[in-house]
Amino acid sequence: MTTFSNALNWRYATKKMNGEKVSQDKVDQILEAAHLAPTSSGLQPFRVIVVTNPALKAQIQPIAFGQAQIVDSSHLLIFAAWDNYTEERIRGVFSHANQERGLPDETPGDYEVMLTSTYTVRTPEENFQHAARQAYIGFGMAIAQAALLEVDATPMEGFNGPELDKLLGLESKGLRSVTLLPLGYRDPEGDWLVKLKKVRTPMEDFVIHFS
Amino acid sequence: MTTFSNALNWRYATKKMNGEKVSQDKVDQILEAAHLAPTSSGLQPFRVIVVTNPALKAQIQPIAFGQAQIVDSSHLLIFAAWDNYTEERIRGVFSHANQERGLPDETPGDYEVMLTSTYTVRTPEENFQHAARQAYIGFGMAIAQAALLEVDATPMEGFNGPELDKLLGLESKGLRSVTLLPLGYRDPEGDWLVKLKKVRTPMEDFVIHFS
Repeated sequence: MTTFSNALNWRYATKKMNGEKVSQDKVDQILEAAHLAPTSSGLQPFRVIVVTNPALKAQIQPIAFGQAQIVDSSHLLIFAAWDNYTEERIRGVFSHANQERGLPDETPGDYEVMLTSTYTVRTPEENFQHAARQAYIGFGMAIAQAALLEVDATPMEGFNGPELDKLLGLESKGLRSVTLLPLGYRDPEGDWLVKLKKVRTPMEDFVIHFS
Repeated sequence: MTTFSNALNWRYATKKMNGEKVSQDKVDQILEAAHLAPTSSGLQPFRVIVVTNPALKAQIQPIAFGQAQIVDSSHLLIFAAWDNYTEERIRGVFSHANQERGLPDETPGDYEVMLTSTYTVRTPEENFQHAARQAYIGFGMAIAQAALLEVDATPMEGFNGPELDKLLGLESKGLRSVTLLPLGYRDPEGDWLVKLKKVRTPMEDFVIHFS
């Protein structure tokens, strides 16, 4: 396996994909990375939608401002966050965790009660914004795992969220789309970005030391 | 090197650290992972602050609700996002990238002009929220790299952001703190969480297929 740094240097926001399929094993590993991502209090307030249907990808493309990777990708991942934290959703997570850990689950514990009382006084919008941030951790993990497997990916925020949510019926699932991640393989001939040097803010500006 | 999935399974939100130092080489690799994280339009609208000074860590601990890892950690990383996207900041990133890529930089290109006009009509709060999401990608990359190096870390959102910003003088740097990541080594004897099974939402609920 390549080093993490090499993988992150290898990856780039692929602009042109060649249509080649990514194996199910690799897609599963990428999904598993998102699944294992840490989230606030372990609530995992996001889901990953996998689109392979060409007709559906074609419907999504105009919602993502025509970006070609939507249809040229092998698998299109959509990261969608909970539209709210509710008592029922929090209970579901804790109940499952208690079962898995062989802990009693008759009544919510102190931590769960505290969490529920904290979240349920906030607006759905505030809670969605918090959930969306957690989705970005999983998004990062998926990007990293793809790079380690030499699978190309294009992190995307450029799409009309409400339109995509409507197309996929996400409202009824209590979700709002946050980011897209087409997976596939680069077509270097047709990709203007692959030719350009990867640039980052100089490290001495990026890191601030208090020692 | 261990697989990514093994590393993500190995890690957990360490509750008790043993005070052992993390080597500079490993800290540098963790910072480099955050540095290489992809961000929207490559703007990298966040910085990582590294605190090793024990007196400063002691001042931060009450701002983070007394959490022991703040002082027991080897290095405390603070992820802080831009408080706004401004024309000057966007120009700085593009000018640097153009220089690094040997491209002309007399006048902003079409894409930069579009970005600047998009961001500068939004409120600073909207822009900060967007920047904060980017910081979470880097946060995830740092967590992943730490796990791959078998360095323990505790992702934390539980702290008073405005108080921390004031203590560190972040306002004058145009930054607002978003997350904390103490780095160190677990003390399994004193850690209640290490004994509990890692639980995640069942994969069949976490992934939604449209095929």
